[in-house]
Amino acid sequence: MTMRRIRLAMVGGGRGAFIGGVHRMAARLDDRFELVAGALASDPQRAMDSAADLGIRGYPDFQALIATETQRADGAEAVAIVTPTHMHHAPAMAALAAGLHVICDKPLALTVAEAEEIVAAAARAGRVFVLTHNYSGYPMVRQARAMVAAGELGPIRVVQVEYAQDWLSTKLEDSGHKQATWRVDPARAGMGGSLGDVGTHAHHLAEYVTGLAVEQVLAEVHSFVAGRRVDDNAHLLLRFTNGARGMLWACQVAPGNENALRLRVYGEHGGLAWSQEHPNQLVHTPLGEAGRCLARGAGALHPAATHATRIPAGHPEGYLEGFAQLYRDAAEQITAMGEGRLPDPLSATTPTAEDGLRGMRFIAAAIASARAGSVWTALQPS
Amino acid sequence: MTMRRIRLAMVGGGRGAFIGGVHRMAARLDDRFELVAGALASDPQRAMDSAADLGIRGYPDFQALIATETQRADGAEAVAIVTPTHMHHAPAMAALAAGLHVICDKPLALTVAEAEEIVAAAARAGRVFVLTHNYSGYPMVRQARAMVAAGELGPIRVVQVEYAQDWLSTKLEDSGHKQATWRVDPARAGMGGSLGDVGTHAHHLAEYVTGLAVEQVLAEVHSFVAGRRVDDNAHLLLRFTNGARGMLWACQVAPGNENALRLRVYGEHGGLAWSQEHPNQLVHTPLGEAGRCLARGAGALHPAATHATRIPAGHPEGYLEGFAQLYRDAAEQITAMGEGRLPDPLSATTPTAEDGLRGMRFIAAAIASARAGSVWTALQPS
Amino acid sequence: MTMRRIRLAMVGGGRGAFIGGVHRMAARLDDRFELVAGALASDPQRAMDSAADLGIRGYPDFQALIATETQRADGAEAVAIVTPTHMHHAPAMAALAAGLHVICDKPLALTVAEAEEIVAAAARAGRVFVLTHNYSGYPMVRQARAMVAAGELGPIRVVQVEYAQDWLSTKLEDSGHKQATWRVDPARAGMGGSLGDVGTHAHHLAEYVTGLAVEQVLAEVHSFVAGRRVDDNAHLLLRFTNGARGMLWACQVAPGNENALRLRVYGEHGGLAWSQEHPNQLVHTPLGEAGRCLARGAGALHPAATHATRIPAGHPEGYLEGFAQLYRDAAEQITAMGEGRLPDPLSATTPTAEDGLRGMRFIAAAIASARAGSVWTALQPS
Amino acid sequence: MTMRRIRLAMVGGGRGAFIGGVHRMAARLDDRFELVAGALASDPQRAMDSAADLGIRGYPDFQALIATETQRADGAEAVAIVTPTHMHHAPAMAALAAGLHVICDKPLALTVAEAEEIVAAAARAGRVFVLTHNYSGYPMVRQARAMVAAGELGPIRVVQVEYAQDWLSTKLEDSGHKQATWRVDPARAGMGGSLGDVGTHAHHLAEYVTGLAVEQVLAEVHSFVAGRRVDDNAHLLLRFTNGARGMLWACQVAPGNENALRLRVYGEHGGLAWSQEHPNQLVHTPLGEAGRCLARGAGALHPAATHATRIPAGHPEGYLEGFAQLYRDAAEQITAMGEGRLPDPLSATTPTAEDGLRGMRFIAAAIASARAGSVWTALQPS
Repeated sequence: MTMRRIRLAMVGGGRGAFIGGVHRMAARLDDRFELVAGALASDPQRAMDSAADLGIRGYPDFQALIATETQRADGAEAVAIVTPTHMHHAPAMAALAAGLHVICDKPLALTVAEAEEIVAAAARAGRVFVLTHNYSGYPMVRQARAMVAAGELGPIRVVQVEYAQDWLSTKLEDSGHKQATWRVDPARAGMGGSLGDVGTHAHHLAEYVTGLAVEQVLAEVHSFVAGRRVDDNAHLLLRFTNGARGMLWACQVAPGNENALRLRVYGEHGGLAWSQEHPNQLVHTPLGEAGRCLARGAGALHPAATHATRIPAGHPEGYLEGFAQLYRDAAEQITAMGEGRLPDPLSATTPTAEDGLRGMRFIAAAIASARAGSVWTALQPS
Repeated sequence: MTMRRIRLAMVGGGRGAFIGGVHRMAARLDDRFELVAGALASDPQRAMDSAADLGIRGYPDFQALIATETQRADGAEAVAIVTPTHMHHAPAMAALAAGLHVICDKPLALTVAEAEEIVAAAARAGRVFVLTHNYSGYPMVRQARAMVAAGELGPIRVVQVEYAQDWLSTKLEDSGHKQATWRVDPARAGMGGSLGDVGTHAHHLAEYVTGLAVEQVLAEVHSFVAGRRVDDNAHLLLRFTNGARGMLWACQVAPGNENALRLRVYGEHGGLAWSQEHPNQLVHTPLGEAGRCLARGAGALHPAATHATRIPAGHPEGYLEGFAQLYRDAAEQITAMGEGRLPDPLSATTPTAEDGLRGMRFIAAAIASARAGSVWTALQPS
Repeated sequence: MTMRRIRLAMVGGGRGAFIGGVHRMAARLDDRFELVAGALASDPQRAMDSAADLGIRGYPDFQALIATETQRADGAEAVAIVTPTHMHHAPAMAALAAGLHVICDKPLALTVAEAEEIVAAAARAGRVFVLTHNYSGYPMVRQARAMVAAGELGPIRVVQVEYAQDWLSTKLEDSGHKQATWRVDPARAGMGGSLGDVGTHAHHLAEYVTGLAVEQVLAEVHSFVAGRRVDDNAHLLLRFTNGARGMLWACQVAPGNENALRLRVYGEHGGLAWSQEHPNQLVHTPLGEAGRCLARGAGALHPAATHATRIPAGHPEGYLEGFAQLYRDAAEQITAMGEGRLPDPLSATTPTAEDGLRGMRFIAAAIASARAGSVWTALQPS
Repeated sequence: MTMRRIRLAMVGGGRGAFIGGVHRMAARLDDRFELVAGALASDPQRAMDSAADLGIRGYPDFQALIATETQRADGAEAVAIVTPTHMHHAPAMAALAAGLHVICDKPLALTVAEAEEIVAAAARAGRVFVLTHNYSGYPMVRQARAMVAAGELGPIRVVQVEYAQDWLSTKLEDSGHKQATWRVDPARAGMGGSLGDVGTHAHHLAEYVTGLAVEQVLAEVHSFVAGRRVDDNAHLLLRFTNGARGMLWACQVAPGNENALRLRVYGEHGGLAWSQEHPNQLVHTPLGEAGRCLARGAGALHPAATHATRIPAGHPEGYLEGFAQLYRDAAEQITAMGEGRLPDPLSATTPTAEDGLRGMRFIAAAIASARAGSVWTALQPS
């Protein structure tokens, strides 16, 4: 039986962009999407040129794209939003209003208020909304989540999560570096710097794996690079719903760390450790027994892990495959919705607009805590 | 400027196959190929059904595919051969005769004689021929090759290479396991078991990185699993053209090794170590200095490595990306040939039919050495 | 020239004790001490029996030991105090008053007040006082300290330190386990549980390597095991004198962590990472360059590291050698004092009573911060 | 009960020597030996001066030492021979003839004939003879041996062992480096260079852990450094008594390898991997299950491992502790012999003169194989 490919449009991701190309490779890998159209840049001419590069239908802006594509019989069914953060809300709202499914980069929006509007719009629209907290697509992250859910660690006590980078150790934004420039501009990236860019990934990963919600945060945030307008280091204490305690470190000035997202979870009966830079392994340390190195693709993993795997054990899958998993899951969700059935439950764990809202509330609470002198601050409940 | 996609047909890789799906993902990742047709199975009905699954033009056999596709204006320009080894020679010869470019899985053929015919045919045809010794597509393998070529290690003295697996530790072929069954059948896989399946990868990698040719081998080969018809362990001593010495271990009965392809190269001034299961790192040990961990995507790598990289440092690329690199390089070679220019030299290092012939001679020499009681045996020169 | 061995007495460390045996091996390794006497247990008979085991002069209590040994021409010149924490103050004060040098296990005392008295007494006595924060004896810790001091990392920005264990994951103290029992009894171990037992090591290590003082802490401390009387997990934020920020995690309920003391230090120009469980390596990550693995015993290390090394690179030294380094340094300090000269500066970096006081203030500030609901709390300055 | 210390003399190990100091630290660590006398250098004056340094009875040569010490009531009971290889035979024969126990560095002797004489003499004398193949003293090596012996891996199929160094990558012997000079002089080190210095360690370790004997070797040996008089690289194939196959690599010109002794053993049901540079871990890979990292000191290890352990898990023991284990075991053997009882069986696995003879036959067979053009060569059976 042929799998029908879903027609996809893209907002952002034109010449010179980074994450747009990642989304396209991710969408292509499993052959469940066909990129048909794009409003790929804020500059209309660059938008049209970029579309020509890709051989797809070009539009000068997302409004034109949505207006036209929704009228075509062969028009886009879903839209991927891969713009800087301040440009998420408008196309997301428009796409949902037009009945399109949305795949949106993170963080969800510039403010909590924007995020709340998107959540509400997604609920009204009844469309699929996937937020690309892409690390949740890694097979061993899903294995970890399944193990915690199955009680293999016992009640969770301690969660240590961190996402450290070094690329902003100097004032890169002054050099005209495109990625750096918008990411440290509060008007385009929101008020969180390292908090928004990498901290929200760490926050989401901790909640995704443990199944627990962060209830309160206490934060110290800092800019080490003189003149930087957003934080480049954030130290947080966490309190989870079940009484678990945690630490979260987000940093972009730690030399030697490229994308060092690491999670350790400790329960009464065992621990888990996972590192994004070696994503095919998950270390499981049952209390009182020798530590075990679980490997992607090997036998006896949870179906949730196997579901997210393409190739056999020992042949590493990486970042693009993890990212592609969210697209593959989105395709299943969209297809199921079109067929009037529930999606495969294993495909239904992708991050949503609600997760994006939680992320915005996480940033807001962290900033509020830090501004108040590092006091425990509750996340607004969802 | 839009990159035109090359129209690709596939021979083999239908329902139940493994490596065909890998080739398709690899071909798709960088969007330089469009799969248009296939003769995907030896059984005509399964071939047609498999093509329908993929929504491409189906053919009952490769003869029909080649006959028809070469007549169509929009017919395939290249063919990927992903059948078991004994089915490489016939479609390769036919495709070359018809003027198609060929991307062929390894080992090249069943015998040295077959391989020699393919090499001659490829030379006559003047078409691109890429053999998927896929590990040569990893960025850090290319970095290693460039470092040796630049003399950063000095004259090479010692090469230690190994490819160990464990999946044939028991007599899996008796269980009906599809991959196991043909790989241990000399009629379908050739006379080398572990030698052909993984040993040729190790042999190619050693030569690819060092730029040296294996001149003589001395082998002890063995089947540890009772009743197995091909070797499942091979221990080789190597002598290289420049006087370097080496060891090569190929094994499919080493519990705990999934795809443990590892290469270490030592020269007068330094060493290199690389492991396929953690492909984004390359350890460089200059004599008398602290060891360095070079990371894919980081600054100061050779252009050969950067050329083979898609995403920034710290976000791991894996097996599929390495495999895709051969497809991307093949696309550049094919495109350049169509445009009457030389390809980008960085794209021109892909393994060829000649490499496949070297691999067949490597197997033949190893088997001959072992049968003679482990004596030094020269590889037939190319 | 023969090195004269220093005559050593021991308080605590009799039958059934753990750390006493470690001190004896450490004292013996470099042959700079001769154990001559002991008051090895709180029970007089066990004290005498334990001394007989070792073939040394036995005493029923430390008062008798000090009274007699100080009268003998061949009496002890130094005393090692290896009792549970609540038994440090009395023998330390008595030994100093009697003019003996003191080597004392950590934490220094039960309370800040006790610690202050010991510091004052040590100053009055003019004797050598070494506190066995033994991890500062590892060669690569000294290398790290020397690198920071030499400015190789630039100004320090972020310090991440942790010491995690798992041996108290269950209520081991109810099983009669000797080590567990006193360490979770506030009357014998002080008010810090994990804070005192492992947190003070982490605190000292961070200060020792960076040369910075922790100025303020903010703490969340917790007992996960029901009924436990002291903390078994502590999460701290740190502010250092120069504006650096840090995190400290002390935990005894993290399955899979045996003695996982880990330090990472990040400056403007580079980072360092060290792990106690693999103490012979130090990873140095200069900003923008490939990471380097510095190895104990290798060339080009700082004299401070070489000073603390016994055997060549590649042959691992471990915990006992690190511990022995403090004894070796103490021997040099004592010898130099006896000879009326300054000790070798490389031997003069051992932890002191002042460090012990800092540790007590660290615990006190952490507990105070936590009790106040996690507020920034200044450490009393020294 | 006081453990009586055994009185030890030393031959070799004076000023400027390396391994003598290691033996002394090893002998001292567990307090079972007292060094009382020495003939510490071949030059009589240096011998006497070196003894004075240590505060022990000095002798100008080993003959004088043995003559006098055996007449003293408090004379040495055992002698440690730590001279270059060509000086092992004479003092070993003399010591055994005088009824002294012997602890001798490896390789045992200069030639097979010498080694045979020592074996015969040791048998006649009925004294304890321990050869310091020190790596057999590591707890996790003993654990590995116990696991194989208990059948936990099933019948052994493949053994991969290697010992690589880099310190002879240049012609260090021309610089006057004391260690290098004698080790590459066939008159002092024997005919094996890397074979004798590190290859015999690898050979012993493989046999010690597997309990199998190497029956045949096939060797390619080489000197990469121009003008070097002994091999600096050796590549061997191995055939074991039970049909297992193996590879052995001994090298002293591999940059980045300090003392990289590594052993991997694969049986029908599982594998083991151990590396001397991280000796506290042993990786166990049961077929079809997740790999496990066994840690020294942790629960559920074999008594053979626990017997060789001093301190708890997570606090690394290293080279000196492993070396000391042979001394501790020797002390138990000597004590038991004096008491007319059998030693603790866990102490009775130390390498013997017979192992030393096997090592000499291993070197001889490897050299013979290589000289004959790499042919299978049987080791002379013991």
